[in-house]
Amino acid sequence: MAEPIEFYFDLSSPYGYFASTQIEALAAKHGREALWRPYLMGAALKAMNAPPNVEYPIKGDYVRRDFERTARWFGVPYRTPQPFPVATVAACRAFYWVDAQDPKRAKEIAMALYTAYFVEGIDISAAENVVRVCAEAGIDADAARAGMSEPAVKERLKAVTDDALARGIFGSPFFVVDGEAFWGTDRLPHVERWLAEGGF
Amino acid sequence: MAEPIEFYFDLSSPYGYFASTQIEALAAKHGREALWRPYLMGAALKAMNAPPNVEYPIKGDYVRRDFERTARWFGVPYRTPQPFPVATVAACRAFYWVDAQDPKRAKEIAMALYTAYFVEGIDISAAENVVRVCAEAGIDADAARAGMSEPAVKERLKAVTDDALARGIFGSPFFVVDGEAFWGTDRLPHVERWLAEGGF
Repeated sequence: MAEPIEFYFDLSSPYGYFASTQIEALAAKHGREALWRPYLMGAALKAMNAPPNVEYPIKGDYVRRDFERTARWFGVPYRTPQPFPVATVAACRAFYWVDAQDPKRAKEIAMALYTAYFVEGIDISAAENVVRVCAEAGIDADAARAGMSEPAVKERLKAVTDDALARGIFGSPFFVVDGEAFWGTDRLPHVERWLAEGGF
Repeated sequence: MAEPIEFYFDLSSPYGYFASTQIEALAAKHGREALWRPYLMGAALKAMNAPPNVEYPIKGDYVRRDFERTARWFGVPYRTPQPFPVATVAACRAFYWVDAQDPKRAKEIAMALYTAYFVEGIDISAAENVVRVCAEAGIDADAARAGMSEPAVKERLKAVTDDALARGIFGSPFFVVDGEAFWGTDRLPHVERWLAEGGF
């Protein structure tokens, strides 16, 4: 099988959420796997000396409106939570703890975290809320709590984030297909053409 | 006829150039006119405290690559000029001088300026280069030179730019369809659906 599509995203990113609802079908259509890689986009924003989109004057208002409209474009439930955006360290650690055991299950956890935050309005920056999301997905709460604190899990998240930055990955969603980088949900048609034609 | 599609763009913006190659056909398909409104996006960037895309660390390299790939996506000739980006005051003034007499002709001048800059690599920040582009499009060079200096033309550009900012317009391209704002070439499919369905 060809190389997987690398799918980088921040668990506090609406566009990352929208992409998460599309990437598996797109990958499967082209005989690929999708490799899910939540990371701390804040590190990239800091390196770029850029605030989150919604914190820009002028653009911030537009982007909030575009979140809602893009949700309707994809036909997925969405509402901008409060607070927004939030830190996703705990959520990412839960993901990588599960990912080390079962990558497929980890994708389900990522989707559950996105749904909790962007559909149910649950603040996923709180570690206990992340534990609850895991528990509702059938994972033992105590095991999740302990897993999120493992040094290896913390290291894994740090390594993924550092590696992303070193490779020039800076947004959410951000895709890498056979070495070619694509930024943004709106680049999914480009990703698809790249997959279909082997580049363009 | 329904209201025109407002098409705001900066004459130094590759994505504005790409959009300029698409908007007329899209508008015509839906029985609309396109109202072309070049403006000084630098004023919006200043208000947002944001540098041009290519000047961000990390993101800058990606964006340059995306310019080339997006050109191939649309199948239009393109190469990132040097210097880039440039000030477009002279180019915008030529546009609005022509626009006051003949809006259709003004669109042709905008296209000619984009082609000069993004295909032929001519620095359109230089007023004399703008005059030459006008002359090659069949406009008397002396008349263009004089027209670009008219106080009313200078005022027009300032008014369009101020008005854009006041309305929350900040990028290039930026479209307004029946009051709904869309930012980016990648939102053209959204514009199209909005036109077809009267919103979504």
